[in-house]
Amino acid sequence: MDFLSEFLTLFLSKLQSPTLGFLIGGMVIAALNSRLTIPDSIYKFIVFMLLIKVGLSGGIAIREANLAEMLLPALFAVIIGISVVFIARYTLAQLPGVKTLDAIATGGLFGAVSGSTLAAGITLLEGQGIEYEAWSAALYPFMDIPALVTAIVLASVYAGKQKREKYRKNAEAISKGEFSGMQPAAAGGYASEAAVPSGGYPTSDQRSAEGSFSGGTGGGAGAAGMPEDERVKIWPIIKDSLQGSALSALLLGLALGIFTKPDSVYESFFNPGFRGLLSILMLVMGMEAWARLGELRKVGQWYALYAVIAPLLHGCIGFGLGYIAHIVTGFSPGGVVLLSVIAASSSDISGPPTLRAGIPKANPSAYIGSSTAVGTPIALAVCIPFFIGLAQATMGGG
Amino acid sequence: MDFLSEFLTLFLSKLQSPTLGFLIGGMVIAALNSRLTIPDSIYKFIVFMLLIKVGLSGGIAIREANLAEMLLPALFAVIIGISVVFIARYTLAQLPGVKTLDAIATGGLFGAVSGSTLAAGITLLEGQGIEYEAWSAALYPFMDIPALVTAIVLASVYAGKQKREKYRKNAEAISKGEFSGMQPAAAGGYASEAAVPSGGYPTSDQRSAEGSFSGGTGGGAGAAGMPEDERVKIWPIIKDSLQGSALSALLLGLALGIFTKPDSVYESFFNPGFRGLLSILMLVMGMEAWARLGELRKVGQWYALYAVIAPLLHGCIGFGLGYIAHIVTGFSPGGVVLLSVIAASSSDISGPPTLRAGIPKANPSAYIGSSTAVGTPIALAVCIPFFIGLAQATMGGG
Amino acid sequence: MDFLSEFLTLFLSKLQSPTLGFLIGGMVIAALNSRLTIPDSIYKFIVFMLLIKVGLSGGIAIREANLAEMLLPALFAVIIGISVVFIARYTLAQLPGVKTLDAIATGGLFGAVSGSTLAAGITLLEGQGIEYEAWSAALYPFMDIPALVTAIVLASVYAGKQKREKYRKNAEAISKGEFSGMQPAAAGGYASEAAVPSGGYPTSDQRSAEGSFSGGTGGGAGAAGMPEDERVKIWPIIKDSLQGSALSALLLGLALGIFTKPDSVYESFFNPGFRGLLSILMLVMGMEAWARLGELRKVGQWYALYAVIAPLLHGCIGFGLGYIAHIVTGFSPGGVVLLSVIAASSSDISGPPTLRAGIPKANPSAYIGSSTAVGTPIALAVCIPFFIGLAQATMGGG
Repeated sequence: MDFLSEFLTLFLSKLQSPTLGFLIGGMVIAALNSRLTIPDSIYKFIVFMLLIKVGLSGGIAIREANLAEMLLPALFAVIIGISVVFIARYTLAQLPGVKTLDAIATGGLFGAVSGSTLAAGITLLEGQGIEYEAWSAALYPFMDIPALVTAIVLASVYAGKQKREKYRKNAEAISKGEFSGMQPAAAGGYASEAAVPSGGYPTSDQRSAEGSFSGGTGGGAGAAGMPEDERVKIWPIIKDSLQGSALSALLLGLALGIFTKPDSVYESFFNPGFRGLLSILMLVMGMEAWARLGELRKVGQWYALYAVIAPLLHGCIGFGLGYIAHIVTGFSPGGVVLLSVIAASSSDISGPPTLRAGIPKANPSAYIGSSTAVGTPIALAVCIPFFIGLAQATMGGG
Repeated sequence: MDFLSEFLTLFLSKLQSPTLGFLIGGMVIAALNSRLTIPDSIYKFIVFMLLIKVGLSGGIAIREANLAEMLLPALFAVIIGISVVFIARYTLAQLPGVKTLDAIATGGLFGAVSGSTLAAGITLLEGQGIEYEAWSAALYPFMDIPALVTAIVLASVYAGKQKREKYRKNAEAISKGEFSGMQPAAAGGYASEAAVPSGGYPTSDQRSAEGSFSGGTGGGAGAAGMPEDERVKIWPIIKDSLQGSALSALLLGLALGIFTKPDSVYESFFNPGFRGLLSILMLVMGMEAWARLGELRKVGQWYALYAVIAPLLHGCIGFGLGYIAHIVTGFSPGGVVLLSVIAASSSDISGPPTLRAGIPKANPSAYIGSSTAVGTPIALAVCIPFFIGLAQATMGGG
Repeated sequence: MDFLSEFLTLFLSKLQSPTLGFLIGGMVIAALNSRLTIPDSIYKFIVFMLLIKVGLSGGIAIREANLAEMLLPALFAVIIGISVVFIARYTLAQLPGVKTLDAIATGGLFGAVSGSTLAAGITLLEGQGIEYEAWSAALYPFMDIPALVTAIVLASVYAGKQKREKYRKNAEAISKGEFSGMQPAAAGGYASEAAVPSGGYPTSDQRSAEGSFSGGTGGGAGAAGMPEDERVKIWPIIKDSLQGSALSALLLGLALGIFTKPDSVYESFFNPGFRGLLSILMLVMGMEAWARLGELRKVGQWYALYAVIAPLLHGCIGFGLGYIAHIVTGFSPGGVVLLSVIAASSSDISGPPTLRAGIPKANPSAYIGSSTAVGTPIALAVCIPFFIGLAQATMGGG
């Protein structure tokens, strides 16, 4: 078949890119127990540099963009972010030995977006000379925030249901005159657990004044178990997500791109180093992915399977919806690829702390292991070249 | 009025520069409680890169400069550095609730120079295409060191006078047979306080061998209070100031610019990254300024008022004296602006530790809060565009 | 003499290079007790950047190189690496007051290679427009690893001989009925010492399973002193050396250069910053050299003498063998210089930890002091310009 062979050729040629070479190099280096490391401060600064560059170019583009064009892709980004969590809830969570809260948190992380993967996608697109709307990068928060909010809300609803169940059984037991000495201790356990994560928030005062979000899914109810108090306030989750270092850097870049005239500093500083810094970031991510393999092994093969399939599946949803936008509003082939890449990526920097605070009972080894050790490498090494090839084969973008 | 309207237009156009955009962006980011941070090691390295670049270009310029031209501006720089401290001594120190030693230290910090502000001034000048003598940057130490020395000497003289006062009253009290049990304890307090800061010096051995500088204004006298021992050795203050990281980097750059041929590495490395690194530094300074606002609030509104007015006032003195040099020796308009900017700036990196060691009894919240939270942002966002506009309006430098 | 005067002129002109200026600047800064420092994370990252750049360019070159050409220089590199250790064993170790194990370790460090010195050599060559085979940088491990392996093996053989001697004497003493109460304690001391260094290895499990390398030269024998068990496994030393951060970065760059197509990221990122980053590294090395002078003073003047002569001597051996390769296989003048520079350099980053683990009884002050405080500055400031001048005078390479 002509289409398939053309697609395969395009796909394979992308695998030789230096960006992916550094990723694989990082894995090999880690596998060989090398003592080579990139200092943490350098790593953080590189991430900052990449995201502010992506933000700046997006902001500069938005200045001249027709904002109406952004509406459909942004809506699709929101839909994908929410869907990904529900997919995890009704696939991964159903598998044997997988705890529902862990599955929801994993879905949240895979729905959230990785700035590094986005940056790698942009680099490969540019390497292929494929045009894309620079504001596509601004789709990031439209997928990232809904995914994290959905995950935390879903987890809270699930935990609430569990508790009501328990409370009902307990009430029945009490009415039957059974011994219930265990109950107060358990409730005390809830309360003390709930106290821990809220300390991790930068501005917990306001939130605890609101009273209904104290400690995510685990808390708030107290011994009496009042289900009405279980409502999750959504604004604190959004705020927490926006305050994360990755989204902050991206939005700062966007704002500076829109409101100041950073073109000279962008051209002389942020843009030229982009590819190089990205290659170093890829190295770190490769090393990190290898280091996290052990954690993934602890939580079992279902997570590994999910982490292999999910980026491809989510990317295909992104590609499909992006293709609709391509037909309806003329969304560029490169933009479709970036929407797919954003969908395929899973958050590795800012997502985990938000989830740790929002779903304190979920096991971080499960979601961070799946995302960092498998999901991100798959998104980088398989999905990006795959969707670029697919775009070229279907829309002739290159 | 034609002059005023032209000036206002020029002033406002400067406010849109990306450099200032990053400064304001940093403040907004901090105000919104973002978790975005620039690692400290990166911050320190950026400061080093900027100052060595400024030094290198100054050194390369001095190689070919007519040194006689530098004399008048350098003399003016010394005069400004000394005057600023006296101004603080006889204005800020007279305000109600302001301690004299705190006011002197604040004056010292505002007389000292900020390398970052100087770098920002150079960038904006270059962005406007205004010519300046590259050796102008070498005026830095001519203002920085006299200001710090003056502050420490003034503080010492003041503390000595206080102590003689006390000693005299005490002697009178003893001769009248009054109870003086509190006195030895207080003197002991002095001695132990004096021991702490001298440990902060890198080479305290030499200094304590000299015996007369042990611990700045607080020490040396002992319980008996011998006023003759109060003389402050000036060389250790100068040495300590020169050993600070900011002046060291600047002077290293100057020396390398004068004695080696760094032109190739300057053109290929230090110069191209200058604007970009500066923009990141501005971001950090904006975040830092916001974080220090709380400290400023502790010491009260008089410091805030001083910190708003002082940069403008000092800058105007610099502009006036620079203008004289412009007429007398043909000092360029850009050079006049840089002299004003150096005068308007207040030290944020190397000044504070020198003052902490030299005036150990002054409250760091007062002087660091005033300088970092208000003085530096005013110097950057108001004074630089103001004096560029003023130079263009009066000398037609653009 | 025409040759000598031409050579001296060439030599002196190289001394004014900015690279050496930064080295001397660093020493002066440190000598003046400046508080200027380059953060450690920045230093490590700069070393990484330089070595991966050197590796990448080597790898790109090897892709198109005739590998047969590399054979003779690589063989010579191995010979030099091994010879240097034997030279130290039979010169430095014979001097009064010098312990044999310390001398062997010092020889190992001077036989090993410094990536920074190699990078400086490349920069100066390029500044002179002298051609060299880019794969010359790949000679690094061919000298580095044999030197470290030889040093550890020689030290082990020496320690084993010492112990057999002791054992023999002891056995004689026992047969004569003498008291030998001290012996078990000493043996216990060996065993406990042997346990410490093996903990420093990243993967000690495999090695301790092998049983014969537990703790380098000090251990393995136990109280009974079985000489057969003294064999040193060579593979763990090689592996440990390859896992060091410097060789890892270089080999990673080589592999990426050979197997991926990093030309675009190399041209846009790794190559342009090379000279600038190197100048900062030189600054750090100058500061470090000054700081280590004290350590060198502790171990005495023979080490200082060795550290002055050895780089020149080893460089001359390198030059001689390189010259043979020049005549036999057409090895370029620049390549001959790089072989000399590699020979003249002594390891400052990855060598020391390997030696500390492999020869735990040698005194680190001796070998690190000699190398960092004297050997490296001599290699940089004397040997590089010397051998460039020599190459130009003998082979007309410029």
